[in-house]
Amino acid sequence: MPFVRIDALGADRDRLDALGRAVHDAMVETIGFPPDDRFQVLVGHQGAVSTLRYDDYLGVHRDDGVVYIAITLRSGRPPERKKALYRRVAELAQEYAGTEPRNVFVVLTENESVDWSFGHGLAQYAEPTVPADLADPAAPIEPVSSPAEES
Amino acid sequence: MPFVRIDALGADRDRLDALGRAVHDAMVETIGFPPDDRFQVLVGHQGAVSTLRYDDYLGVHRDDGVVYIAITLRSGRPPERKKALYRRVAELAQEYAGTEPRNVFVVLTENESVDWSFGHGLAQYAEPTVPADLADPAAPIEPVSSPAEES
Amino acid sequence: MPFVRIDALGADRDRLDALGRAVHDAMVETIGFPPDDRFQVLVGHQGAVSTLRYDDYLGVHRDDGVVYIAITLRSGRPPERKKALYRRVAELAQEYAGTEPRNVFVVLTENESVDWSFGHGLAQYAEPTVPADLADPAAPIEPVSSPAEES
Repeated sequence: MPFVRIDALGADRDRLDALGRAVHDAMVETIGFPPDDRFQVLVGHQGAVSTLRYDDYLGVHRDDGVVYIAITLRSGRPPERKKALYRRVAELAQEYAGTEPRNVFVVLTENESVDWSFGHGLAQYAEPTVPADLADPAAPIEPVSSPAEES
Repeated sequence: MPFVRIDALGADRDRLDALGRAVHDAMVETIGFPPDDRFQVLVGHQGAVSTLRYDDYLGVHRDDGVVYIAITLRSGRPPERKKALYRRVAELAQEYAGTEPRNVFVVLTENESVDWSFGHGLAQYAEPTVPADLADPAAPIEPVSSPAEES
Repeated sequence: MPFVRIDALGADRDRLDALGRAVHDAMVETIGFPPDDRFQVLVGHQGAVSTLRYDDYLGVHRDDGVVYIAITLRSGRPPERKKALYRRVAELAQEYAGTEPRNVFVVLTENESVDWSFGHGLAQYAEPTVPADLADPAAPIEPVSSPAEES
């Protein structure tokens, strides 16, 4: 479900790939998303009129390694899981992409089950036949053996 | 009102135009938006560091024909209209752009009347003079004779 | 906190910079954001498959000078401040970038304190040590002596 936009500066395709995996693996581990529940838009800004702006808000020093991660997901995740997500994204962004934790910015926006269509013109989460674990965003997290999948 | 972002892979301008029309016509038909209520950002990702990621979540097989459609609109649309919207978007994306319904992904995010400014620095939906049908997102849909307008 | 996306047509880097400053200064003045609380994605659409669509909705005549400004911020700002924001954005977009007020489109999306991470893997607004003025979006606006800062 989560719909993710990642915006970074520069033209390194491998870095952008790594950031996408960092965000996805962190969400699988901490929120409990299925490993194949991945929908991402990855954009590196490097052209004449496409860029990012940032400052040192809250005393956090940022530089051109800054990464903006905007995630849309259903409401219902407890604050503890969101905090775990931020921690893990920062860790994996550093591990996978060399991004310093100070440069990792995350913002979440929530909606509801009926606000998603995953193809075939259906609102899968709002259909009577949807599995219970997909219908309940607050369901316990199942252990994930290998979250670091990549296509 | 709706603010729409459409992200697709590839460099076919006509296809992106067709997807924009598919989404707009579907919204006019199923949600009842006025035909001239169109605000869209259309982006084809084809460069070195701008791309989409996807998997076969929920058993839906996707490929590089995948289209991400993110719509911001006011709260208040009943679930039935949202479901009708998904169905119609999938139909028209196929009819106009040749996109297979399995590749059509839609996510909605809601806000309120005061969260919109349509120019001139005004919050048009929150002004006392706004017409009633614009002020009420749950108002009945008026029949639309020719929704397939294009500028 | 606010996360801002600005989409415009054309390839003028100075214009995009000016629009970014217009939106930021307007938010500092009317909503009371700290001057260094700036997180922006600025995109000029000029390529083969990246563009904007618009019509004359609500009788407002728009042209290729149209600017889409999408702002994510925490809930709690009173309607009066949002209206003041729209007015000031339109004024400053004209003053800084020559954008006509009719071409300035703004849409807000709200979330909560725990939905933000400003680096270091922390949910700064949801930590017990966060300063009170950062924790309360409805707190009175402090006078800002020089909002027109630029990095």
